[in-house]
Amino acid sequence: MKIGMIGTGMVGQTLAGKLDSLGHEVVIGTRDPAATLARTSPDMMGNPPFKVWHEAHTRVKLATFAEAARHGEIVIGALTGSAALDALRAAGEENLAGKVLVDISNPLDFSKGMPPTLFVSNTDSLGELVQRAFPKARVVKTLNTVNAAVMIEPGLVDGGDHSVFMSSNDPEAKAVVRRMLTEWFGWRDVIDLGDISSARATEMLMPIWLRLWGALGTPMIGFKVVR
Amino acid sequence: MKIGMIGTGMVGQTLAGKLDSLGHEVVIGTRDPAATLARTSPDMMGNPPFKVWHEAHTRVKLATFAEAARHGEIVIGALTGSAALDALRAAGEENLAGKVLVDISNPLDFSKGMPPTLFVSNTDSLGELVQRAFPKARVVKTLNTVNAAVMIEPGLVDGGDHSVFMSSNDPEAKAVVRRMLTEWFGWRDVIDLGDISSARATEMLMPIWLRLWGALGTPMIGFKVVR
Repeated sequence: MKIGMIGTGMVGQTLAGKLDSLGHEVVIGTRDPAATLARTSPDMMGNPPFKVWHEAHTRVKLATFAEAARHGEIVIGALTGSAALDALRAAGEENLAGKVLVDISNPLDFSKGMPPTLFVSNTDSLGELVQRAFPKARVVKTLNTVNAAVMIEPGLVDGGDHSVFMSSNDPEAKAVVRRMLTEWFGWRDVIDLGDISSARATEMLMPIWLRLWGALGTPMIGFKVVR
Repeated sequence: MKIGMIGTGMVGQTLAGKLDSLGHEVVIGTRDPAATLARTSPDMMGNPPFKVWHEAHTRVKLATFAEAARHGEIVIGALTGSAALDALRAAGEENLAGKVLVDISNPLDFSKGMPPTLFVSNTDSLGELVQRAFPKARVVKTLNTVNAAVMIEPGLVDGGDHSVFMSSNDPEAKAVVRRMLTEWFGWRDVIDLGDISSARATEMLMPIWLRLWGALGTPMIGFKVVR
């Protein structure tokens, strides 16, 4: 399928690389492609600059947010939470209309010290903010409860014996995303939590995910819903 | 050991019954013992009145909040979140000072419709409110991520292959609670999340717990942290 990836960070690279390896046509979008390619230093997390990744994934076309969104039958927002709405606005409402829009972002607020808090939670969510901002997009919140490596290879944690969640108002969009999660990425336990307001529930897993990283000393963590 | 149970609802009954069956000396506290015993109709959830349970657990003494707290070497707050601080104030700061105070409550707010939201979250927690209100108590937040039946018998869900969490500023109090969880109740995976501020993380599991109950059709759910 044609995939538009919005965001060139670690999550966008990881997902784009996996989807490309599966034979999908991936365009990865950034605000300013020339600037993204010109960066030569590692990012804040010590990850190599985008062009290093891009040289190893030459089939993935780098373009603007809007070009990537226009290209995608599925559009994936792989963005820092605080930048998500702005980047999607730059992608263009008309380019998202009718599309399955996979929202992976968490509303982390690093401005008040560590551990980060959430800039929206409890009575609202980033998933709902995105759906309200783009009412014609078919927003599905998913994959926001594991790190990038685990998103595309759940087997990295205990052979994949853990759960992933979906929230959306659109049953057809959920069916598309369920297939992506299971057939493309290898998730075995995909739990449909309900409409997009249930994105509150998975975004509110961030605090325990961060505490567990601290307590267990690894971000390679999965939540298994045992029943 | 001498246990003071603060609260005569389903959680208090379940924990008190289990602790009594293990040979501990349990006093269960309520605001007005005569009124609690006089009730003859089921509660809002359809549970039988307290006296039915009490007739089956005659060794457990019913008393006031203050008498129960004074009795306990370990005091357990098994309370509706919105009533927790008031009940503990009635139990008396002097009766909680120096005690291990196990806080099981979740800050659920049912006043804004279903599903309930949290009346404190993200930048604070009920666990922290309790610790600040009773600075001499050794507050340990735990067991608030499963329903009452599972608290004392984790094996009811998938043979017990799931996790329980602890948050506290007091390492000795955590050691006491770890023993209660493992040796008395049979938990195998007890995760120490850190100080009492990490209670935010487990209280913020309530939204997904409630959504999962809806999605899966059962409250017999456990969270297993896979790593």
